This record gives sequence, C-alpha cells and structure tokens, in this order.
Amino acid sequence: MTPTIGVFDSGFGGLTVLRALVARLPLARFAFIGDTARLPYGSKSRRTIARYAVQSAQFLVREQGAEFLVIACNTASALALDAIQQAVPVPVLGVIDPGATAARAGSRTNDVLVIATDATVRSHAYAAACRAHGLRALEKACPLLVPLVEEGWTDHPVTAEVIRIYLDELNTEAAALGLNPDMLVLGCTHYPLLRPLIERAVPSGMRVIDSAEAAAEAAALQFGNIAHAGKAGVRPPSAELRCFATDSVEKFERLGSRFLDRPVGKVELVDLGG
Amino acid sequence: MTPTIGVFDSGFGGLTVLRALVARLPLARFAFIGDTARLPYGSKSRRTIARYAVQSAQFLVREQGAEFLVIACNTASALALDAIQQAVPVPVLGVIDPGATAARAGSRTNDVLVIATDATVRSHAYAAACRAHGLRALEKACPLLVPLVEEGWTDHPVTAEVIRIYLDELNTEAAALGLNPDMLVLGCTHYPLLRPLIERAVPSGMRVIDSAEAAAEAAALQFGNIAHAGKAGVRPPSAELRCFATDSVEKFERLGSRFLDRPVGKVELVDLGG
Repeated sequence: MTPTIGVFDSGFGGLTVLRALVARLPLARFAFIGDTARLPYGSKSRRTIARYAVQSAQFLVREQGAEFLVIACNTASALALDAIQQAVPVPVLGVIDPGATAARAGSRTNDVLVIATDATVRSHAYAAACRAHGLRALEKACPLLVPLVEEGWTDHPVTAEVIRIYLDELNTEAAALGLNPDMLVLGCTHYPLLRPLIERAVPSGMRVIDSAEAAAEAAALQFGNIAHAGKAGVRPPSAELRCFATDSVEKFERLGSRFLDRPVGKVELVDLGG
Repeated sequence: MTPTIGVFDSGFGGLTVLRALVARLPLARFAFIGDTARLPYGSKSRRTIARYAVQSAQFLVREQGAEFLVIACNTASALALDAIQQAVPVPVLGVIDPGATAARAGSRTNDVLVIATDATVRSHAYAAACRAHGLRALEKACPLLVPLVEEGWTDHPVTAEVIRIYLDELNTEAAALGLNPDMLVLGCTHYPLLRPLIERAVPSGMRVIDSAEAAAEAAALQFGNIAHAGKAGVRPPSAELRCFATDSVEKFERLGSRFLDRPVGKVELVDLGG
C-alpha cells in the first residue's frame, strides 16, 4: 500500500513545497489541502491560526488517511506546529526547522537573514530555530511580496524595486547590529517564485535558502524509507495527487499550476465549518 | 434615545466610511465591527462572503441594538447585500449604489471608471449599479493597492508607480472600447488613503469619486432625521463609538486610527464562530 503524505497550507503557496516533495518522493501518494476560505493566516492571531490549522490536519489524517503531515505554511509551522502535533496521531513536519538546518549547513559566518510574512516574523520562530542551531538570525516581514506574486508580477520592475527596498532595509539593520550574514532564508512558500529576482538583489557572497526545498529534503530523509516501500508494487507514472480547498477552487486551479509547475487538476471543495 | 448605526467591514478599511459618517451624523451612536479573523473577503466566494457578512450583521442588530446598518465593505455590498437585508429586520445600506449615484451626479460623458478588489470587480456590481443610473462603467481589479495601504506606503514612489500602471491599463482599455470617461470611482474602502496619489495620476478633467464619502452622504439623507432626534437630549461631545473585531485587535488598534483619522480606542474581541 502506497503511503499518503498530507500537505497543508493556508492557501496554495505550499504547492511549492509539494512540488519539491513530488520531485523527491515520486512513489508517494499526496493529499494537499489549502484553507483558502480563511487565508491569509499571516495577519491572524496564534489562537485563530491554531484552530484553523488543526481542522485541516484532522481532515488530512481522518478523511484522506494521511500517515505523515507536512505543514507547507510558514505561518502555521511557526504558530501551530505544537497544536497540530497534539491533535493528530501521525508525525508532523513543519518548514521552519528544515530552513534553519539548511542555513546552518551553508553558513560560514553563523549570521543569517530571514524574510517572511508578518505573523511568522512576529512569532520569531526562525530566530529561535536558528539559535538552536548556533546561528544568529535577523528577520524581516515583507508583506507586499505575496500580493505581488499573486498578481503575477514575478518578473516585474515594481517587484524588483520592492525587493531592493526590503533587502536594503534588512542589510542596513544587520550592519547596524554588527552582523555579517551570508545566508538569506526565504521563509514564505510564495517566495520561491521570486527567487530569480531575489538572487539578483542579494549582495555577492550571500546564498539564498528556499525553505520549501529544505522541507522536502527533510521529508525525504524522514519518510523516504516508507514512501519507497511502494517500489515493490506497480510504479505510478508520477506521484498521485489529490487537491482540496475550502474556497475559491477556481483561483486555486488558475494560480496553483504556476506554484506546482504542473497542472493541479480538479480541485475538490471541502467545508471545514466556520 | 440616541439611535445606534451599525457599521460592518471585513477589516478596518470601512473606518473610512465610519469617519465620513461621524462627520455627517455627529449625534448618532456607532457600533463598528471588523471581521478581521476572516479578511480579506476580496478573494473569497459569494457563498462564503454572505455567510460571514450575515453573522456580523446579526451581531450588530441583536447584540448592539443597531437600528440601521451600513455595509462599509465594497465586496460585501457587492456580493451579500441581499443576504444581509433578508437576515436582519432593519434598513441596510451598502456602498455600491451611493458610489454610482455620485458618479451619475458628476458625469457629463456618462462613462465612468471603477477600481476595486478582485471579488467586487468579478461581481460587476458597480457596472450594474451604474447601468441602472444610465452610465457605462469599466471596472478594474487593483489587488496590490490594499497591501500597499496596509504597509503604510500611502505616499511612496512604488505606490505611485503601481497606480500609474493600473490606470494606464484601464485608460487604454477604455479608449479601445470607445469610452470617454470623466469619473473614477474608488470602489474599495482602503483607496481613500491613496486619494492624493490617485488624483495626481488621473487624466486632467477626470474627477475622483470616493464611495466612502458617497455612502455617508446617502446615510445622512436616509437616517439623518432619526439621528438628529438625539438633539433634544444632552449632546455628546462627539459621536459615541464602540469598535469590535473578530481577531487581531492589536493590528486594528494600530492601523485603525490612520483610517478613522482619530484614535479608535479600545477594540473589543468578539467570536462569531468559524
């Protein structure tokens, strides 16, 4: 029996994590839910985010039979990972710790920068995860980047200018604090679509870490042996995938393919209440 | 007994409508609720928006004793006005028709432009309201403007450039359709904060109509005689105001004053379920 990996996001940005997971675990079955009726989580409180995220996690485990969960949402990973782990009886992986682990592996100066949504930054979850790995992290909220991606301006002069302004502010603050950062962690699942613009904007010598990639790598390490159990059976032509959303199925189908880098297919509407 | 006017928005953008209402009905008592736990409505479906909006309307009528409701949210006015009118036993005024009425009063060419959120535009509520007034309207979604206002970039070169791009696209499309517009309706309650930048960007001869102002004017006409009944009693130093939010009370308190143009005071948290 091919194991099912449940992947959860507040919207469809987490499809960048799913894309990286599919590439690494092609024999697994995936169930993805985007809680699009209640996005974005980035501006909401911990209590509200935890309540919403637990409902989605329970849907994936109880109704889709997920044996593992990947929280493909930085805000939910930052604010609700504990609540989700307590609410479901399967292993749960977030995106924050893998991002910090990748930064640890790459940094020589032990100073890193993190860009993310407002709520992720206010939680200081990246700073805490980086500290646990012996790194100093400076975080910055970049609330305009998600709307710019959703507008489709992923290769637009306005977006390049907004990135320049945000990174200038961040580098100035880092210098004032005496930091010498050599890593920039993309702490939001929308940001991988801006990676080319961001790479052009960082100072030379600074590397960009994609937490979606890092989470997929961690998942492959953790779940890989089970997902590869499928090898004995008939190999599917590509990973099996079912997508669910709590609202705005059309928008999900329209924008989702851009994040997943392949058609998302038919998105099924589910009602989690609320 | 001073009558209470209930004002509802998905967030706190509707405080620009409240500001205009307070200026015109200084003797009324106001109860404002922002459904911040579930904002933004702009990207959600009609069914979901109606369900959410009805819950807030019922809270204002049943628990705050509102005798009139102003739906200070273009998206909810566009998609849920009927549902709200059916759900509560008091008069309900939206922002769409007042905006169209003001455009009608000012236009000489009978052609108008409307900028708004995605959901408001997809509903074509402004186009329908304008048509009912004998106007042709061309609508455009400008999804980056709300995040730019919330980032505080209300007088920023990036915002000016985004406005220029949106208005150029809109004017080009209008010309291609053979329209000769002389009015631009701001169909989102966040946009009044961008009014100076927008006024600088419109072609000469085009007037900007603020639907928040227009709705307050319509409310003053409709409710004024009742609100002025308070005159016989002791006149309060200024309109009485209670603000409620379903989440993010801190963000509401922090940003709200900018929209209301006076301190919002203590914002009370309410749970509408969901």
